[in-house]
Amino acid sequence: MTERTRLAGFSHRGVLKYGLVRDDGIVDLSARHGERWRSLREMIEEGVLARLADEAAILPADYALADIAYEIPIPAPEKIICVGVNFPDRNAEYRDGQDAPPNPSLFVRFPRSFTGHDRPLIRPPESPQLDYEGEIVIVIGKGGRRIAQTDALGHIAALSLCNEGTIRDWVRHAKFNVTQGKNFDASGSIGPWLVPYAEESQLADIKLETRVNGELRQSDRTGRMIFSFAKIINYISTFTTLVPGDVIVCGTPTGAGARFDPPVWLKPGDVVEVEAEGIGLLRNTIADEV
Amino acid sequence: MTERTRLAGFSHRGVLKYGLVRDDGIVDLSARHGERWRSLREMIEEGVLARLADEAAILPADYALADIAYEIPIPAPEKIICVGVNFPDRNAEYRDGQDAPPNPSLFVRFPRSFTGHDRPLIRPPESPQLDYEGEIVIVIGKGGRRIAQTDALGHIAALSLCNEGTIRDWVRHAKFNVTQGKNFDASGSIGPWLVPYAEESQLADIKLETRVNGELRQSDRTGRMIFSFAKIINYISTFTTLVPGDVIVCGTPTGAGARFDPPVWLKPGDVVEVEAEGIGLLRNTIADEV
Repeated sequence: MTERTRLAGFSHRGVLKYGLVRDDGIVDLSARHGERWRSLREMIEEGVLARLADEAAILPADYALADIAYEIPIPAPEKIICVGVNFPDRNAEYRDGQDAPPNPSLFVRFPRSFTGHDRPLIRPPESPQLDYEGEIVIVIGKGGRRIAQTDALGHIAALSLCNEGTIRDWVRHAKFNVTQGKNFDASGSIGPWLVPYAEESQLADIKLETRVNGELRQSDRTGRMIFSFAKIINYISTFTTLVPGDVIVCGTPTGAGARFDPPVWLKPGDVVEVEAEGIGLLRNTIADEV
Repeated sequence: MTERTRLAGFSHRGVLKYGLVRDDGIVDLSARHGERWRSLREMIEEGVLARLADEAAILPADYALADIAYEIPIPAPEKIICVGVNFPDRNAEYRDGQDAPPNPSLFVRFPRSFTGHDRPLIRPPESPQLDYEGEIVIVIGKGGRRIAQTDALGHIAALSLCNEGTIRDWVRHAKFNVTQGKNFDASGSIGPWLVPYAEESQLADIKLETRVNGELRQSDRTGRMIFSFAKIINYISTFTTLVPGDVIVCGTPTGAGARFDPPVWLKPGDVVEVEAEGIGLLRNTIADEV
């Protein structure tokens, strides 16, 4: 495996594909392996992600990066589970006088609530309160139930990034649960790609930053997470069986637009970048729904 | 279509199938159409559910009901969305002094949190607080976004029942959201079957009851729902595009075990029945996880 192998879902002339991203273009792995593995999820299931990426490293690129559109890396995971309130000061931001919680808050997003890298997040006509949340994504490689914390990191296949875009007034639209404010179509993004996970240093204490129009808004390190990656995997697998391709979005640092006084929402023309050391940079513009 | 057509997912000798349920057994539709439509979801997508059920009505049964195990009707829907707090007095049960909410609370369950009819709900070792919630299920036939209330019922393909089994102490395990208490593997059930939806009288004001060991615990009528079926479809489709096969679980009447003083939890050996007029009776026992 090269220093940073990158595997992406993408579309070319409207056809959904997957491949190896290189600086000189994309090697189309779906053209070579699509009959056997329909998407990166199936490659992860069979544990061939890193090996096939290695093999493709010497092949010529099939497409220029300018000719493809990034899609979310795993188009149809069994589950996308998001962790809320997982960085210091995030709990205090709620100003509800409650202590830091004993267990992670969890909610679910559907794949269609996300778009790919370099595509616009969609601001719906129902609300101007589109907000960003930069987060690190882990993708499960080896499934299991009640996975011990000491074994947990060995269940990760790959890493990615998420802009966990949120319609703020719709997360408090009802008595309980944030479902609706977290699930507007194409209000968030995942990508640009998957980086195969091989060793703990890839996650242990990496910097995670979010910038809006170049201005730093969120910045923290994973070493300060309230619930570690290992604890998250352990906790979630207590109640549900994790399977290969499951996506876990691990929580955002303080500094979302909702926390400014007055709040600052994303608007058409803005550019949001989420970046983490060793994973990459996920960039999206904002557009009004048409 | 006969008076009450019933289409079920089931397994026979460990193989997942689907078919038409009759009093004399099951007609195996997957043996006849499985190449074209992998599950009832794909049949709903092509709008052939009622027609193929009609055609199968004159065929001989392939299996005795004693020889099959019911599975959840749609094994892999894109989404399962559940509505919380949707019957009178349910809001008051929370005793938090809040008025009835303006919009439905929504949360998500994964398919693996459900089992089929006549199979045990699983009580996990983590908690003794397994509780029942009898609910009506609608399955989307025609997808859409921002579906008007006046058109909404025309987007329903079929009806079913749910025991929206819940681990009570795990719904308040964290600061926000009920995800974990609603998603223990096989803690709830959907079924026994789908009844194709043809007219409003099938939903308008039907009786919904839950019994534990024969004792009536929940009883109400859909005419009293706070958010009507049409409003639920309209509201959910505001933020997410509904697609054929999507499952919406529409809320439970007052009377779950958590509301007794002291609370009464389900225990191994109990039999829970959820019944609604014109849809059927969903029965489950309780078993400890082994």
